[in-house]
Amino acid sequence: MAKELKNLTKRSEDYSKWYNELVVKADLAEQADVRGCMVIKPYGYAIWEKMQRQLDDMFKETGVQNAYFPLLIPKSFLSKEAEHVEGFAKECAVVTHYRLKTNETHDGVVVDPSAKLEEELIIRPTSETIIWNTYKNWINSYRDLPILCNQWCNVMRWEMRTRLFLRTSEFLWQEGHTAHATREEAEERTKQMINIYAKFAEEYMAVPVIQGVKSETERFAGALDTYTIEAMMQDGKALQSGTSHFLGQNFGKAFDVQFLNKENKPEYAWATSWGVSTRLMGALIMTHSDDNGLVLPPKLAPIQVVIIPIGKGDQMQMLDEKADAIVNNLKAMGISVKYDNADNKRPGFKFADYELRGVPVRLVLGARDLEQGIVEVMRRDTLEKESVSIEGIEAYIKNLLDEIQANILKKAKDFRDSHIYECDNYEEFKERVKDGGFFLCHWDGTEETEAKIKEDTQATIRCVPFMFEQTEGVDMVSGKPSKCRVLIARAY
Amino acid sequence: MAKELKNLTKRSEDYSKWYNELVVKADLAEQADVRGCMVIKPYGYAIWEKMQRQLDDMFKETGVQNAYFPLLIPKSFLSKEAEHVEGFAKECAVVTHYRLKTNETHDGVVVDPSAKLEEELIIRPTSETIIWNTYKNWINSYRDLPILCNQWCNVMRWEMRTRLFLRTSEFLWQEGHTAHATREEAEERTKQMINIYAKFAEEYMAVPVIQGVKSETERFAGALDTYTIEAMMQDGKALQSGTSHFLGQNFGKAFDVQFLNKENKPEYAWATSWGVSTRLMGALIMTHSDDNGLVLPPKLAPIQVVIIPIGKGDQMQMLDEKADAIVNNLKAMGISVKYDNADNKRPGFKFADYELRGVPVRLVLGARDLEQGIVEVMRRDTLEKESVSIEGIEAYIKNLLDEIQANILKKAKDFRDSHIYECDNYEEFKERVKDGGFFLCHWDGTEETEAKIKEDTQATIRCVPFMFEQTEGVDMVSGKPSKCRVLIARAY
Repeated sequence: MAKELKNLTKRSEDYSKWYNELVVKADLAEQADVRGCMVIKPYGYAIWEKMQRQLDDMFKETGVQNAYFPLLIPKSFLSKEAEHVEGFAKECAVVTHYRLKTNETHDGVVVDPSAKLEEELIIRPTSETIIWNTYKNWINSYRDLPILCNQWCNVMRWEMRTRLFLRTSEFLWQEGHTAHATREEAEERTKQMINIYAKFAEEYMAVPVIQGVKSETERFAGALDTYTIEAMMQDGKALQSGTSHFLGQNFGKAFDVQFLNKENKPEYAWATSWGVSTRLMGALIMTHSDDNGLVLPPKLAPIQVVIIPIGKGDQMQMLDEKADAIVNNLKAMGISVKYDNADNKRPGFKFADYELRGVPVRLVLGARDLEQGIVEVMRRDTLEKESVSIEGIEAYIKNLLDEIQANILKKAKDFRDSHIYECDNYEEFKERVKDGGFFLCHWDGTEETEAKIKEDTQATIRCVPFMFEQTEGVDMVSGKPSKCRVLIARAY
Repeated sequence: MAKELKNLTKRSEDYSKWYNELVVKADLAEQADVRGCMVIKPYGYAIWEKMQRQLDDMFKETGVQNAYFPLLIPKSFLSKEAEHVEGFAKECAVVTHYRLKTNETHDGVVVDPSAKLEEELIIRPTSETIIWNTYKNWINSYRDLPILCNQWCNVMRWEMRTRLFLRTSEFLWQEGHTAHATREEAEERTKQMINIYAKFAEEYMAVPVIQGVKSETERFAGALDTYTIEAMMQDGKALQSGTSHFLGQNFGKAFDVQFLNKENKPEYAWATSWGVSTRLMGALIMTHSDDNGLVLPPKLAPIQVVIIPIGKGDQMQMLDEKADAIVNNLKAMGISVKYDNADNKRPGFKFADYELRGVPVRLVLGARDLEQGIVEVMRRDTLEKESVSIEGIEAYIKNLLDEIQANILKKAKDFRDSHIYECDNYEEFKERVKDGGFFLCHWDGTEETEAKIKEDTQATIRCVPFMFEQTEGVDMVSGKPSKCRVLIARAY
């Protein structure tokens, strides 16, 4: 573990390489020996668990309940919603057989040809189809609505080029699927969930996001509207971090989910779906971390404080006792703390290791410092050290954790805001977009313009953002009238 | 929901049918439209979540960390551990292709024959192979050990005859996989985990279990020893509720996982694995429930207390206010409570519904009772009603929940203990085993005898139990010498 602490590539040299190395060196995840799949290591998973716990609480506060639906989807289900199958069904893992048998040389196994499925099964790339096929039996009357289900699960999309957390064939996510009696209620829920995602990103991940609605091209397959949160990474590229879809009655109709309304008339149910995935790990890592390694927001850090003693021989007992007292006090305050007095690693190694892992606060207990009643405190976000009185150190740390959480959000926000540009000239845009950043540009609303921008620059329309005042103008590409500025950027 | 409350089959009529109906009527789970798979409904999933949370805490207290390993396993991995492949690899879902394409008539999708995988992938039936293939890269020195990983995930075993929670093709579980430097440490961990399962079953599920070690025939494929906890259902049949395996160096050798020991000599790592699954839901349901529906232990009940008002018109405001106060007080005590004042259902319907769902305590707030300062309390386990002073009702309820938890454990224990028989006569055994119960019989230790008992009676050796004093004797079937009594029963 953490064998080559010093060899992390610098962001300025190669941002992409820096990210790939950091994920592995900080023990977050690694490539599995299964094409495109990842192993999420304990330290990475601990961060994901903290995210899950918080999001789950936020969902439940709005009445959402967890449930579980099958991993495998009959192939024919995918064809039922026409747009959905176009957008989704293609790149996915197909189960065709249900048995292996010993081979002829008795040293391996082969697929048993007699165990072929009548209908192939697909590993879920997303679960709208299987869930709406189930909802059909749950919904008869308006009294059965709304249904507000969420599931935490694995999904699979056969990706050709993969990157840990950002794009893998298998990933973990939550997918919420709600059914409503009215269009208004479903639209309300769609917005409510994207708001929750934005709130979670800002308050817990310390990642500021821009909310908006996707263009038709970028919409989820089968949706009438897709809301998104877009975050800016340190290289100025956008990372779509969560989406919430208003699905209209498309799935209600495709799976014949009708209910009797208050007037006893049959109507199709209205649908939403919304999800965030382990991709959030990528957003978290890329937003805050630096050339020394991870920088984690205190609210999601598995270890918030590490205490390292520096002393020899008989000094150690005194240091251990002092540390124990601090550890107990911090734990009682709900702060997760690790005391690392392992004697087979030098303090310098430990410093670098915990920096790499992004532990927000480090305390160094030195024997000599202790005699003077002080302790050295380092905050990971700024790497600043301070000598602090050991008296009341716990309250100091609690405040410091809050300050770090606020500071890294501010830093990320300042960075983002200084990289958002209004731009009305396509030549200028093409030149500048290479360096990253979010561009607010007028758009005529056509697919043609959207496609041209993408072809010329690899940048895409991320969304029509909600947070900026909108005025009419002229499309920078076509010169045609535009109703609003859209957010354009290169994206992960 | 709960449309046919009254039609639950009685246990005495058909225990198996009673179970199948109860799972569906109490909204716990249902068959999916995918062969052998289930949908876990929100109420059922809420119970599973409470189990998960508690088990997870207990694992973490012993140093275990969560991680995540891939869903798909290359076929060749399964052949690496010879016994493992014999015992496991056969009935499983095989992924052969990674893409679909639109069919010729453009109204559906077909498997794209050009997207055939070079090597087929198996949906994990259990993850020893993929995890030990990963551990190979994590382990170099004794300093890297132990590794204590657990994952909560879905697994798939292609079952021909399925029953909700008890045996389904896909199910949810946790699987712990640990690697150790010494045999002793691995054996210690194997026992530690079966102890945790037993403790969880008794203290949280209120399900008493018998711990023991499996016979060679019943061992996990690839294990040197399999420890088990066996619970007795109300029909006297055994339900294996959790297992913990000492895997020796089998997987270490199969995947070449070597480490340098303190003497700098290479050694193969020692392994354990252990798991419990959604099968525990079956054990929970079948142990306590009755002809009126579920009986849930308070510690795992999603709703611990339900309050139902009985009143008309302007009485309702007063009842709502009184209920609010009780609800707030109970919540502050960490008790989950639901106030059901929905006016579209009669109280009688609500009573039956919450009984069916196994809510441990029901309060009825009657307008007339309230004038006298009393409230009606019903406990689900005994169905006893009492009028209780509303003054101090919260403390009364808290005690009652504890009492119910203790009572249903005692009831289950008494039932089990009165259905454990020592038996030394095979003719008698064959006759009595039909009626269920656990039989403690002498066994000569041979596979032949084990097979004969199974063939004659469908009963199997569940384990060599630890909780009984063992003496030597004579095998009831073969007449040969026996070192100990084993636990024999028909099982789920």
